[in-house]
Amino acid sequence: MASLASRLAAGGGLLTSWIGIPEPLLAEASARAGFDCVTLDMQHGLWGPEGVMRGLGAVVPLGKPALVRVPVGDFAMASRALDMGAEGVIAPMINSVADAKAFVAAMKFPPLGARSWGPTRAFALTGETDANAYLARANRETVAFAMIETREALAALGDILAVDGIDGVFVGPSDLSITLAHGAAVDQRSPAMEQAARDILVAVRAAGKWAGIFAITPAQAIDYRALGYDFVALGTDSIYLRLGMTAMLDAVRPAG
Amino acid sequence: MASLASRLAAGGGLLTSWIGIPEPLLAEASARAGFDCVTLDMQHGLWGPEGVMRGLGAVVPLGKPALVRVPVGDFAMASRALDMGAEGVIAPMINSVADAKAFVAAMKFPPLGARSWGPTRAFALTGETDANAYLARANRETVAFAMIETREALAALGDILAVDGIDGVFVGPSDLSITLAHGAAVDQRSPAMEQAARDILVAVRAAGKWAGIFAITPAQAIDYRALGYDFVALGTDSIYLRLGMTAMLDAVRPAG
Amino acid sequence: MASLASRLAAGGGLLTSWIGIPEPLLAEASARAGFDCVTLDMQHGLWGPEGVMRGLGAVVPLGKPALVRVPVGDFAMASRALDMGAEGVIAPMINSVADAKAFVAAMKFPPLGARSWGPTRAFALTGETDANAYLARANRETVAFAMIETREALAALGDILAVDGIDGVFVGPSDLSITLAHGAAVDQRSPAMEQAARDILVAVRAAGKWAGIFAITPAQAIDYRALGYDFVALGTDSIYLRLGMTAMLDAVRPAG
Amino acid sequence: MASLASRLAAGGGLLTSWIGIPEPLLAEASARAGFDCVTLDMQHGLWGPEGVMRGLGAVVPLGKPALVRVPVGDFAMASRALDMGAEGVIAPMINSVADAKAFVAAMKFPPLGARSWGPTRAFALTGETDANAYLARANRETVAFAMIETREALAALGDILAVDGIDGVFVGPSDLSITLAHGAAVDQRSPAMEQAARDILVAVRAAGKWAGIFAITPAQAIDYRALGYDFVALGTDSIYLRLGMTAMLDAVRPAG
Amino acid sequence: MASLASRLAAGGGLLTSWIGIPEPLLAEASARAGFDCVTLDMQHGLWGPEGVMRGLGAVVPLGKPALVRVPVGDFAMASRALDMGAEGVIAPMINSVADAKAFVAAMKFPPLGARSWGPTRAFALTGETDANAYLARANRETVAFAMIETREALAALGDILAVDGIDGVFVGPSDLSITLAHGAAVDQRSPAMEQAARDILVAVRAAGKWAGIFAITPAQAIDYRALGYDFVALGTDSIYLRLGMTAMLDAVRPAG
Amino acid sequence: MASLASRLAAGGGLLTSWIGIPEPLLAEASARAGFDCVTLDMQHGLWGPEGVMRGLGAVVPLGKPALVRVPVGDFAMASRALDMGAEGVIAPMINSVADAKAFVAAMKFPPLGARSWGPTRAFALTGETDANAYLARANRETVAFAMIETREALAALGDILAVDGIDGVFVGPSDLSITLAHGAAVDQRSPAMEQAARDILVAVRAAGKWAGIFAITPAQAIDYRALGYDFVALGTDSIYLRLGMTAMLDAVRPAG
Ligand SMILES: [Mg+2]
Ligand SMILES: [Mg+2]
Ligand SMILES: [Mg+2]
Ligand SMILES: [Mg+2]
Ligand SMILES: [Mg+2]
Ligand SMILES: [Mg+2]
Repeated sequence: MASLASRLAAGGGLLTSWIGIPEPLLAEASARAGFDCVTLDMQHGLWGPEGVMRGLGAVVPLGKPALVRVPVGDFAMASRALDMGAEGVIAPMINSVADAKAFVAAMKFPPLGARSWGPTRAFALTGETDANAYLARANRETVAFAMIETREALAALGDILAVDGIDGVFVGPSDLSITLAHGAAVDQRSPAMEQAARDILVAVRAAGKWAGIFAITPAQAIDYRALGYDFVALGTDSIYLRLGMTAMLDAVRPAG
Repeated sequence: MASLASRLAAGGGLLTSWIGIPEPLLAEASARAGFDCVTLDMQHGLWGPEGVMRGLGAVVPLGKPALVRVPVGDFAMASRALDMGAEGVIAPMINSVADAKAFVAAMKFPPLGARSWGPTRAFALTGETDANAYLARANRETVAFAMIETREALAALGDILAVDGIDGVFVGPSDLSITLAHGAAVDQRSPAMEQAARDILVAVRAAGKWAGIFAITPAQAIDYRALGYDFVALGTDSIYLRLGMTAMLDAVRPAG
Repeated sequence: MASLASRLAAGGGLLTSWIGIPEPLLAEASARAGFDCVTLDMQHGLWGPEGVMRGLGAVVPLGKPALVRVPVGDFAMASRALDMGAEGVIAPMINSVADAKAFVAAMKFPPLGARSWGPTRAFALTGETDANAYLARANRETVAFAMIETREALAALGDILAVDGIDGVFVGPSDLSITLAHGAAVDQRSPAMEQAARDILVAVRAAGKWAGIFAITPAQAIDYRALGYDFVALGTDSIYLRLGMTAMLDAVRPAG
Repeated sequence: MASLASRLAAGGGLLTSWIGIPEPLLAEASARAGFDCVTLDMQHGLWGPEGVMRGLGAVVPLGKPALVRVPVGDFAMASRALDMGAEGVIAPMINSVADAKAFVAAMKFPPLGARSWGPTRAFALTGETDANAYLARANRETVAFAMIETREALAALGDILAVDGIDGVFVGPSDLSITLAHGAAVDQRSPAMEQAARDILVAVRAAGKWAGIFAITPAQAIDYRALGYDFVALGTDSIYLRLGMTAMLDAVRPAG
Repeated sequence: MASLASRLAAGGGLLTSWIGIPEPLLAEASARAGFDCVTLDMQHGLWGPEGVMRGLGAVVPLGKPALVRVPVGDFAMASRALDMGAEGVIAPMINSVADAKAFVAAMKFPPLGARSWGPTRAFALTGETDANAYLARANRETVAFAMIETREALAALGDILAVDGIDGVFVGPSDLSITLAHGAAVDQRSPAMEQAARDILVAVRAAGKWAGIFAITPAQAIDYRALGYDFVALGTDSIYLRLGMTAMLDAVRPAG
Repeated sequence: MASLASRLAAGGGLLTSWIGIPEPLLAEASARAGFDCVTLDMQHGLWGPEGVMRGLGAVVPLGKPALVRVPVGDFAMASRALDMGAEGVIAPMINSVADAKAFVAAMKFPPLGARSWGPTRAFALTGETDANAYLARANRETVAFAMIETREALAALGDILAVDGIDGVFVGPSDLSITLAHGAAVDQRSPAMEQAARDILVAVRAAGKWAGIFAITPAQAIDYRALGYDFVALGTDSIYLRLGMTAMLDAVRPAG
């Protein structure tokens, strides 16, 4: 199947589902429903490592790229996610060059990084059998998204983008809005946050890397894709579920 | 909390969610989203017995009645569902008085039935501590829904409804439509099926029992509630999820 | 290790733990705590079949016999429990000779019964490697306890005991007390129930089989062992846990 | 993908793996390793219903047919296995026409049987979206294998084969050898058993149905395929694993 | 419900259960049995992250505060525990101001810390719907307990207590006794350890923060509450279970 | 049972199985099949922490030592593995004295390290009841294997071996071969890698510590044992399984 990297290169703004309930059937259902790719969220979502393996196993055979957002600083899990068949990893709270380098170390084989060899599960899922072919292409085809979601990260953005092995950034509008408001409010659409989204994109474009972002609503996703974001997370499983249930209930029991 | 029986008596057509993915968080989410009650489906859904226990444990503390549809003929599971905290059980393919009596045997304590004593888990979930108080009211408060979904069942409907301990019927439009079409098609809204839904309701009303039915769409649910059905299953978790995902995706990527 | 049958023959009134929470660590803990054997309860307890396998796997290596109480009428599970390493099965609601024969069919290899061959897991757990040696002794060493807990069962007791392959009976005082009270109360120590416990023992002794019974409290267990019961279930995991927690809390926070 | 029925029709003796350890990764690995199809064993294997669903979900996307052997008499599970994506079900201990008809009732939609409608999971796994197209072909494409493994079954073989909806038989050599030896021994290669294997095949051929059988060793599988068996189970997961481990250990630590 | 912080402020020495067996039913049972709150132990207990989520889900709806002890240095899990509905986190081996600051970073939103936004699961469990209301109160209401259990930690105690965002300390008597004995023995009631418990309390009081401690026995809990400890862990699930089992067994089989 | 340390001292080159599929039955099967010990791999294998606990629980009662390979840098898990009953831990990517010291801190009680007290589960599994006896011997009997698998590690080997508490090294031929080839290839038998294996052994012998290594094939294992390696991992569960399946399939369907 086409790699995540090649799909990003094809342009258009990939839409990923965002799955926090640790149930592989939900990840699978989102892949079948038309999302371009599937992201399993270990940071604010509820997956443990074995669950992530099961969830990836439900998505990869369907020919859709799968990503994992790892917990803060859990770069060992970034490597494990790749071993389990993920094509991309989103690392939260990459606030400095040091953070970025630690992330790259886990994501890329030597000499670029220090990823350890062991993709047995990924090979099973994809049918790969040629170790050296995989070694030769893995650093190019796996995608490391560094989350930019603090003032420190904004300040260091250029340097983070310059780290070899960081393939793109992923903007976290909730956290970024909080930090931009000095903790006073969470507002993904505050003017400061929206300006940041534009500024980050300019920097990413200049660096020749990918720009991703989380959108709670379709309206946000439309705006981010219009701005030029390459990779947009659209809602979460909890939102899909509630939206579907509410639509059906409201149709039967209209508000008085 | 108000019992399922008393909520049925209050009228208005209770709406139940229908959960087939064996993930307690989905059952819980549906209870929080506004359904009147939650049904876990073991027949065509994917739950095993331990999962059902976990799912009931996620719903009962929220003050919403929970029901379980058991596999065909698995009346031992009907008893177990009550032990685990369900207030109602839906038994598929009750085609004869003998089927109905076997179902009642599992659902009701002696002398009405032969339900075995052991509601330890239900007591923990509801805070009940008085065994004899529970024994005295359980047969009245737990609800046995016999599914009417074959020609044989239609033919025996009056006799099934006359079985003491059968509290209501639940219509399965898919199976009933197939049998009415001699296997030629599944069509929940075929004229024959719609006529059957009306006929069954008349018989149920005459017997002074509850009438339930499965609705795939809001339109069906509205019609069944308008007819006078007391208990209507509205869609399934797979439908809620797909509906929500599709709504979001379509908003972002309108069809060309 | 000594078989359950030989331990019963050694006399003294075996004490079994009774585990309903589907967590192998509890079954294991009870084996280590001094019970003579461990019973996993699928009828009113919360185990599914895979859980039972895990629970048996936690007990058998410790050299303690394990038993399973199956759901009502689930004789296929009786066979599976033996395959999974249980040495005994307790079948609820054996109310007739027909029930007893169906239970024996699942518990004993031909020609006595119709148990199907497949003890792969039991062999792994016990280190058995000689299929024909196991076949030769299994019918003798596995123990089939038929629960006597209804008026019908009492009436048929002699005939049930005469069924070849029924190794013993197990008295269910809660259900038996309900049926003896015509559904009016559950009272494991009602005079009628206590008389029944004595009468059943006389019949079992006459038939040369084993007598088991469930005791909620130590006082009941002492009485039943004094009467001559061979196998006594003492409390349940929920009781052990609550007793231990309450003892500690009460010691710290004495009631005013 | 080609249906199980069409693969059987293509001839050559399909080889199925036989998985008893309730771990989807083993089922998946066997599909990838070259077996023609995968069978999950619930009778003597260790799967519960949720596990079977996970295991089927790991096999079906790989384009290999999956089958489930259900516990004795658990025909409700036969229907559920089809709902979960199995293409075939093997039912143990089909000893009479009544057994065969009960099995057919669960496997085939009306009017041939009484299978209940609800293949939501199977549709998700296979991408099917046309309910009536599935209804029209399901009875033809799902395969009901009745196990012949007792003297009663042998005596009734012609009548069992004549039951419309029984697509084939599956021989259980362990049980059949025990019954043929009047319980004296289990010997899958006893002369009586080998004669039975030949006799059964003649009857099956005459009836125009499929013949399956379980082979513990490659030698048995070769013989059965040479005889003309259409479907041969080859070993079990425990055997594969032990064989692989032993081969590696023996290579490093040759016996003195 | 009243927050953990307000319950601590109400005084009296809260008693928490301590659950190491990764079974939500045990956590739930302890909440129902009378403990003031429930702690799930990931350090020496056996929980993984998904289990913790299930365990918290079983406790929070009962209106009892739940806490999680995270593995050493796993501050990402501290944030996740809050997201999953815990009100408090106990972090082991906080030996320095740097450790304390890293813990605070995970526990508190900006500008006090760097906790990332994502309490979807906590909102579902508690019914919270107002993101900014939660943001405004979370830093005040969630409780960060730093474990003091080494010589280094004792030496740095004042400075650790001075870290803004550390809400209290939790004393680990086993580890502290080992370190105070230079590794020679573990003795939770050694004179050195008891002196440390008093000294720590003085420092905590001076700093205006909460003091917690682990008590193996009721006697220890009584003493610590008498000293003025605000939060006392009383035994563990393994102790409750063994105590209850032993009490019942000893009542039936008194020692000779 | 004999400790892992004493078995290493007995010489001969212990053979460990290597289990990556998170299924306790596989770990158990490998212990029964003749391996000297069992290693559960959390780095490239698929285990989460709860699974590791279940897997260790399946191995330790069989009297075989169990080890865990933890994820990169997850030293908290090293402590937890010991608490769960592992006798040894293999830590990947120990590239410096600082890494080695952090690993020792997690593995050894004070004053040598900073391991925290809490072996409740290990005590249950082994029957240990004397806390101070365990404290006195644990640092000697648990085995800390530092993985040497990078150029940095090779350069620091002498210093790493000199760290008190590091009991041995474990060579990772895949990673070491990649780093020695500057990322150009993975080749466990490259001349550079084979030379490294010899050089490392010389250094380990000089330091009086244990040498372990991973062998994919029996031939590699034979060579490493002949060189003098004390502890050799032989293949993985995926290899055992595939080898066994392929052997059976090839015997039935010989290549044309
Ligand atoms: Mg964020
Ligand atoms: Mg139906
Ligand atoms: Mg009973
Ligand atoms: Mg058989
Ligand atoms: Mg400690
Ligand atoms: Mg390595």
